[in-house]
Amino acid sequence: MQIDIQLLPVSPVPSLVSTKAIVVIDVLRATSVIVHAISQGALEIIPVATVEEAFQKAKNFPQSTTLLGGERGSKKIKGFDLGNSPREYIAEKVKGKRVILTTTNGTKAFHSVSSGREVMAGSFFNIGAIGGRRLDLGQDLLIFPSGDEGRFSLEDMVCGGMLIDRILNKGNGPITLTDASQSALILYQRFKENLVEAFRLSTHGRDLIERGFEEDLAYCAQIDITDIVPTFRDGVIRSSFAPSLSPRGEGKGEGNDR
Amino acid sequence: MQIDIQLLPVSPVPSLVSTKAIVVIDVLRATSVIVHAISQGALEIIPVATVEEAFQKAKNFPQSTTLLGGERGSKKIKGFDLGNSPREYIAEKVKGKRVILTTTNGTKAFHSVSSGREVMAGSFFNIGAIGGRRLDLGQDLLIFPSGDEGRFSLEDMVCGGMLIDRILNKGNGPITLTDASQSALILYQRFKENLVEAFRLSTHGRDLIERGFEEDLAYCAQIDITDIVPTFRDGVIRSSFAPSLSPRGEGKGEGNDR
Repeated sequence: MQIDIQLLPVSPVPSLVSTKAIVVIDVLRATSVIVHAISQGALEIIPVATVEEAFQKAKNFPQSTTLLGGERGSKKIKGFDLGNSPREYIAEKVKGKRVILTTTNGTKAFHSVSSGREVMAGSFFNIGAIGGRRLDLGQDLLIFPSGDEGRFSLEDMVCGGMLIDRILNKGNGPITLTDASQSALILYQRFKENLVEAFRLSTHGRDLIERGFEEDLAYCAQIDITDIVPTFRDGVIRSSFAPSLSPRGEGKGEGNDR
Repeated sequence: MQIDIQLLPVSPVPSLVSTKAIVVIDVLRATSVIVHAISQGALEIIPVATVEEAFQKAKNFPQSTTLLGGERGSKKIKGFDLGNSPREYIAEKVKGKRVILTTTNGTKAFHSVSSGREVMAGSFFNIGAIGGRRLDLGQDLLIFPSGDEGRFSLEDMVCGGMLIDRILNKGNGPITLTDASQSALILYQRFKENLVEAFRLSTHGRDLIERGFEEDLAYCAQIDITDIVPTFRDGVIRSSFAPSLSPRGEGKGEGNDR
C-alpha cells in the first residue's frame, strides 16, 4: 500500500486517482466544518464551487431542512445561514438538516477528486476514524490538501502527516511513502506537541487571526472528537452510517452505506 | 524580502517569476554536476532538454573544447563523454571546456525559469555562496527544485531549506517565508546533522543506490566546497567571474559578469 500526498491542488489531478482512496483535508476550515456538522447530526453536506451555485442548488430542497453555509474572504456570505467556523455547526442548528456549503478552497477540492475510488473528508476531529477506515480498505491512499488559493498550506500537511503517522503506527503490512508523504510525516512530527503552533505559522492561520477567527485555531486542533467518516459520493457528503435525506421530488430513497 | 520554494515543477511556472531571483536545485545530481564542473574550471555549461538537441548543439562548437554530458535512467548516454556524477567533472577533464548537458530533470528546470531576473544553480557545494549572493541582490527569491520526473523530491527541499537557514542566519532585514519555504526549513532542520539520511530516504536517492551510484550520495552532501555561483543567461550557465568562450563563428565577445 502506498500513501501519497498531493502538495499543490493542481488541476487536472494526477492519473490513477480512480484507483485510490482519497482524503480531502482543509483543516482551516472546510473539512473541519464538514466533519463537525455531520458529527452534530447534519444529514448531508453538498459542497459547491460558487455562491451562485449554492443559491441555485438550495431551490431544489425544502427551505425548512436546508441551510446555506460557507465563506468568502473567511467571512459569512450575505444571505447565508452559517459561516465557515466549525463552532457554528452545532446540533441545535444543523441536526436533521442539509447544508449547502461553498468555501474558497475546500469545497472545490472534493469535485477535483470526485473520480477517486472513495473520497473522504478528514480533519483532526476524525483523524483516528479515517486512519482506521483506511486499513479496512487496503488500497493506495492519496491525501489531498485543498491548499490556500492554489498555494501549499502547512496546516493541511501537518494533518496529513498525522494521518500517515496513525496508519503507520497500526503496523498493518508494508506501507510505501513517497517523498511528499515522508515530508508530511516529518512536518507533523515537528508540530505534534503543539498543532496550534503550526496554524499560527501558516499563512492561512495568520489570516484567520487577523480576521477575528483566532478561536477557531484551537477549536480545529482538537483530535479525535468523533468517529464519523464523511464520504463524498454523487456530489453529496454523508456519513457512511447516516440516513439519507432525499431531494424534493427526486425520492431517491437510496441509503448512504456503501 | 520573500523567500518561496516551488514544491512541484509545474509548467507554466507561477507569475511574477521575472521579478525574482531563482535558484534551481537538483542536488541528485544535475546542479551538483554544474557547480562542480564550473568550480573545476569548465568555462560554460549549456543545459538542453533532449539527447538529440545535445548532439545537434555540439555541432556549433569546436570538438576540442566541447564535451557532452548527462544521463538517462541515471546512466551515461551512448556517445557522450561524461555521465551525471559530479565526481567525473574534474579539472583534468573539464578545465577550459564547454559541457553540453542533458539530464532528466535538472537541465529542463533552467529553461522553465529562464524569465527569472537572475537564475542561479544551487547545490550543497555552493550553498554559502548562493546565500551570500542573495543578500547582495535583495529581491524576492524563488527556490526551484527540479523535482523527480514531475514529482516532489525530498533532497531538493532539504537543500532549499538549508539555503533559507543560511539567509535567515545572516539576519539582514525582514524576511517573509511562505508555508512552502517554512516547510523546507523544517525539513532541513530534521536532516541537518545527516544530509545523506535524507538522500537515503528519498525516492531518487534510493534509485541511485540501486543503479550503482551510492558513492554520489556522500559526495553530493559536501557543503561549501566552492564559492562559485553559476548563473544561467541566454541559454548558457557560467560563473559570474569566468571568462566567456564564444561559440564558433558567433564571436559574441560579451563578458559574463553582470
